[in-house]
Amino acid sequence: MSVITLCTDFGLSDSYAAAMKGVILGINPRATIVDVTHAIPQHDIAAAAFVLNGYYRQFPKGTVHVVVVDPGVGGQRYDMVVKTKDHLFVGPDNGVFSFVLMHEPAVCHELKIRRTASATFHGRDVFAPAAARLSLKWEKSILGGIIRRPRVLDLPKPIVSSRGVTGQVVHIDHFGNLITNITGHLLGTLAKNKTLEIFIKGATLHGMHDTYEQCRTAAPCALIDSFGLLEIAVNTGSASKELGARRGDAVKILWK
Amino acid sequence: MSVITLCTDFGLSDSYAAAMKGVILGINPRATIVDVTHAIPQHDIAAAAFVLNGYYRQFPKGTVHVVVVDPGVGGQRYDMVVKTKDHLFVGPDNGVFSFVLMHEPAVCHELKIRRTASATFHGRDVFAPAAARLSLKWEKSILGGIIRRPRVLDLPKPIVSSRGVTGQVVHIDHFGNLITNITGHLLGTLAKNKTLEIFIKGATLHGMHDTYEQCRTAAPCALIDSFGLLEIAVNTGSASKELGARRGDAVKILWK
Amino acid sequence: MSVITLCTDFGLSDSYAAAMKGVILGINPRATIVDVTHAIPQHDIAAAAFVLNGYYRQFPKGTVHVVVVDPGVGGQRYDMVVKTKDHLFVGPDNGVFSFVLMHEPAVCHELKIRRTASATFHGRDVFAPAAARLSLKWEKSILGGIIRRPRVLDLPKPIVSSRGVTGQVVHIDHFGNLITNITGHLLGTLAKNKTLEIFIKGATLHGMHDTYEQCRTAAPCALIDSFGLLEIAVNTGSASKELGARRGDAVKILWK
Repeated sequence: MSVITLCTDFGLSDSYAAAMKGVILGINPRATIVDVTHAIPQHDIAAAAFVLNGYYRQFPKGTVHVVVVDPGVGGQRYDMVVKTKDHLFVGPDNGVFSFVLMHEPAVCHELKIRRTASATFHGRDVFAPAAARLSLKWEKSILGGIIRRPRVLDLPKPIVSSRGVTGQVVHIDHFGNLITNITGHLLGTLAKNKTLEIFIKGATLHGMHDTYEQCRTAAPCALIDSFGLLEIAVNTGSASKELGARRGDAVKILWK
Repeated sequence: MSVITLCTDFGLSDSYAAAMKGVILGINPRATIVDVTHAIPQHDIAAAAFVLNGYYRQFPKGTVHVVVVDPGVGGQRYDMVVKTKDHLFVGPDNGVFSFVLMHEPAVCHELKIRRTASATFHGRDVFAPAAARLSLKWEKSILGGIIRRPRVLDLPKPIVSSRGVTGQVVHIDHFGNLITNITGHLLGTLAKNKTLEIFIKGATLHGMHDTYEQCRTAAPCALIDSFGLLEIAVNTGSASKELGARRGDAVKILWK
Repeated sequence: MSVITLCTDFGLSDSYAAAMKGVILGINPRATIVDVTHAIPQHDIAAAAFVLNGYYRQFPKGTVHVVVVDPGVGGQRYDMVVKTKDHLFVGPDNGVFSFVLMHEPAVCHELKIRRTASATFHGRDVFAPAAARLSLKWEKSILGGIIRRPRVLDLPKPIVSSRGVTGQVVHIDHFGNLITNITGHLLGTLAKNKTLEIFIKGATLHGMHDTYEQCRTAAPCALIDSFGLLEIAVNTGSASKELGARRGDAVKILWK
């Protein structure tokens, strides 16, 4: 049994994702292919990195995770395989694996099957065959040298002061929830049993909630979400629309 | 072989659906996971219930159907398993299983694996592991008490008079077809060989057609669709746009 | 092992695609079902034909490709199976298989399992069961007569002169790339080592590029894409938006 997951910005109306699946099944007919999403915003490497971080740990040991958000295809960036204790990752060396590389010991190899590759579609011509072959065995003949400094995005870190913390919105999900880079762990450590005020886009939120349902309808509220991160949400609505918020917007918390 | 279907409002650009798939494959690596859709309109329990009703019977005996449209996650509503003669259903007790519960004998159990669950994502932390475990065996240790009165939506019923019937639009599909709650069976019984006039949003439709192709282009027409329901359609167009119709709009039929 | 691919215009929010999958798994529980896309623009037979051409060759021998873009469902057109050396194709005889039929020797059979079919959903009632049964064996009992003249779309061909070639945009992909019917092979033969000027929607492009990354940001540029076709692209942007181009627009190349 081998699981191969696919996460791309190829959209849902072309042949691109299907071509990758055909190549994979041609090499490993027993692969279980999992569509993560093909709707990463076009060329949005940071979004792909964040989304990957939300699912890869849930998969069984040995899963091969393919991520193709690849504006630099055919150019200077490496085709890459990242090997961690439990998983393999296949995709461009452009930052899509940033969270993996920050969180876990990993070895990065250059991929060496470019010979017959098109210049514009390494998903089909490099990453899909590499993933399928590596799902069968750790095949050294398709690996090149070790990449010592794989590209890691310069991800914003929250800034802590004695009275609070300032972070930012790092992802807006399908529901319009604003997911921040402030962890529940950090708040649990620094602000336990304290009274919180949360400031975002001119709005002030008082205290934390446990569930979406607890939040007053139409009013933005804060909770620790399933990523373990501080999230601003609107109960059955969109915090993003309600607050006019975007990725990168500042979120400030004061406690006392 | 075990089939697990997934129907959610999680959208197509986040990690949520993939996280569920990873959890399932970690527990039952041989599961065949079927994406039904992750594009149910957000929090639209009635839409999920209608869509589920359109596919669950098509699946083999033993299929586990997971439905997660769950605005009340982490709150008072139960996590639930519904067992019918041929299928299992896993999801929140909030009405998503209304059609199943109306159509078939069923036993509903509370799910008991909340201990380590996040407050905001029972799809990943409760429903996915429950579905995977139940796809392997009917595991009583994860079941709590029987839910005697599972939540069933108050679904509108058509009103029959001597001269006709009044129903309503219960679903608008991807093509803009207006699907009503008036069954072909009812019309076959009450209006056989009669001349029908159909009134919707100020328009009058004369008689029924058999296929979309028979309908005059751009003119709304009525037929019995693949659900066995009266449907208002526009041949290669959108009845919804053409008529400005929405879910809940009245459809009146007179016969003579 | 049998692979069945699904390409439809059913959208992503209804039960239609899932109903097909359920029917398939009921007949062939070991089928590997691959979602190609369910987001072909509604009723757009030419788009389905183009997309199919982009993936079918990538799949293993024996794959059954189901395509359902079928505005004429229930009408005069045939339900059809196309058999080529390596693949089977199941769908309506309305042109969706045009590229296959132009490129490969093929035998077309009428499908004969209409008896219990709804008039509006042959995807579920004819094509899914036919694909599942044919994925198990070449079952003659569900085949009718041979279709001698299957429908092939009148696809535009580029017009070559001594100084250049005029083609047109045949597909616009998810990234807004303009894919034309001018092949890299044709340019390699006729215009090798020549200086090219490319004219589209009032813009003039000078020469060809190898990769998207080489193109100047925001300026449309031309390259040979992964289909082997001339493509007009904008690096990390949309050529379609930038140029206001649509399918069918002329692309003229002059060389010297």
